[in-house]
Amino acid sequence: MPRAWHLMSRPQGLPTPDNFALKEFDPPPLGDGQLRVRNLWLSVDPYMRGRMNDVKSYVPPFQLGAPMDGGAVGEVVESKAEGFAPGDRVQHMAGWRDEAVVDARTANKLPELGAPPEQFLGVLGVTGLTAYFGLLDAASAKEGDVVFVSAAAGAVGSVVVQVAKAKGMTVIGSAGGADKCDYVRSLGADQVVDYKAGPILKGLAAAAPDGIDVYFDNVGGDHLDAAFALARQNARFAICGMIEGYNDATPMSFRFIMRVVAMRIRLKGFIVFDYFPRMAEFYGDMGPWLANGTVQSRETVVEGLDKTLDAFLGLFEGANTGKMLVRL
Amino acid sequence: MPRAWHLMSRPQGLPTPDNFALKEFDPPPLGDGQLRVRNLWLSVDPYMRGRMNDVKSYVPPFQLGAPMDGGAVGEVVESKAEGFAPGDRVQHMAGWRDEAVVDARTANKLPELGAPPEQFLGVLGVTGLTAYFGLLDAASAKEGDVVFVSAAAGAVGSVVVQVAKAKGMTVIGSAGGADKCDYVRSLGADQVVDYKAGPILKGLAAAAPDGIDVYFDNVGGDHLDAAFALARQNARFAICGMIEGYNDATPMSFRFIMRVVAMRIRLKGFIVFDYFPRMAEFYGDMGPWLANGTVQSRETVVEGLDKTLDAFLGLFEGANTGKMLVRL
Repeated sequence: MPRAWHLMSRPQGLPTPDNFALKEFDPPPLGDGQLRVRNLWLSVDPYMRGRMNDVKSYVPPFQLGAPMDGGAVGEVVESKAEGFAPGDRVQHMAGWRDEAVVDARTANKLPELGAPPEQFLGVLGVTGLTAYFGLLDAASAKEGDVVFVSAAAGAVGSVVVQVAKAKGMTVIGSAGGADKCDYVRSLGADQVVDYKAGPILKGLAAAAPDGIDVYFDNVGGDHLDAAFALARQNARFAICGMIEGYNDATPMSFRFIMRVVAMRIRLKGFIVFDYFPRMAEFYGDMGPWLANGTVQSRETVVEGLDKTLDAFLGLFEGANTGKMLVRL
Repeated sequence: MPRAWHLMSRPQGLPTPDNFALKEFDPPPLGDGQLRVRNLWLSVDPYMRGRMNDVKSYVPPFQLGAPMDGGAVGEVVESKAEGFAPGDRVQHMAGWRDEAVVDARTANKLPELGAPPEQFLGVLGVTGLTAYFGLLDAASAKEGDVVFVSAAAGAVGSVVVQVAKAKGMTVIGSAGGADKCDYVRSLGADQVVDYKAGPILKGLAAAAPDGIDVYFDNVGGDHLDAAFALARQNARFAICGMIEGYNDATPMSFRFIMRVVAMRIRLKGFIVFDYFPRMAEFYGDMGPWLANGTVQSRETVVEGLDKTLDAFLGLFEGANTGKMLVRL
């Protein structure tokens, strides 16, 4: 029997293990146009926290007592869909489980870019797409800009650093702790701020004495406020997520938001789904960058379906460097 | 001897009369290219509060012990500048005083739009320009949009309401108290929320059950948070000023700022100076609108140079409906 992680109760604040259960479930019969997939890799992502609340958002909430889902890569073991055969590797959205039945139209056969399959959950997947279009489209970042990236050792942030360097920008990344800061430096960041070593505002002011043109926000809170404080005229902020606010409803407080006016700051929220139609453009840059080493992929890998919840909870403790993945 | 209001000490929080003094000053001799102007109307504006702090911003701070300045309209009494003659009426930036010497290149002869001179400090001046380009450019508002305007009975807000209606938008305005709400309704607003009658979030949710496409922010704080809460997908916010934060350094707190991501909100700060090169475009719409009654000008007029400080302080108590002006 296949097994899947189920949401058993809605978390208040940080999720705890008793909100979840790993349970067997009846595999559905395979209908026309469907695939049975044995999952090889699962993705866990901060945005999933939002789906654990019963609120209307850009993705529907997880249902109580039902299997959760999310990004996954697997191998087709049975196909009733034209164009798919056993052995094909696909990326799909029925994660958090070891076996899935998926509609073929929601599954993407992995393109031949010479990359290992798990990269399609990371630097070649939604993570990379988020970094690429958030930086270049939502923030309109261009050569010569001074770019500040929060959570620069994280899945999205680490790709932002590398794309920004590939495009000729000056990059300041923030990360928590010496190891992560070393990693961000190894990606090519010009300056790294350890937000655990002191107030981020002070660190950013030292790293960017002349201010910043672009801020790629993954965390909200004090980082966003520091970016307001250091923004140059016509600065552009891409707001991708605010992990600091995912687990509680505490209001975020800003001392420097008024600088939006004086500095003519543009702030733009975005959702990666909106860029799916531009996937080819993304592959066109990212494929070669990976092949020639301009961009490097880094994953934190947790082993086994049983550890999926630990991997997810680890996201909120900064347990990952690069993309957090589960190998089955 | 001419008299001018001087800044004698920098205010902490809300300014008090002892921060200022109305004093005689030596009229400078008239140099080449200069005009001596007898002021007829003075403008007082919330942004002037910022200039009372000793901080770098988009306009330099007022100097201690020196006359303050700001928008004014006056009559040329002496000219050493080509193209200007006694009797000409000019708009210039040497306000807060009854007589001024100004460089002719910083003075604008009032164009012949058939409008009374004080309107060049309001609906035909910086106030109108702010409303017009903030709405149409910074917020990219277009026909059919649902537009929320805070401080809709104020100088800028009251023009935003009328421009939005002239361009075929649905308008929700907020104002404090029944009289101001009646005024906003009289300008053509489809819905008016009295922010003194209850939380603005509740009022806005009732007035815009399907949400808003555009928010024109004059106040920051709870109004901005309510706009985050009610924003529809791809909503656009023009951030013009945040009067709630002008007098203290208390951080502003937001419960709903995370909706920037889900709703792909774009927020843009702007400074009216950036639109000065597009003045002709503005006159082209606003001149006819005033002439045919599409847009109406309303001023709160205070009489006499001695009352200028009262007029300014009144801005922070909501004493004005429409533009606050001083007639000399």
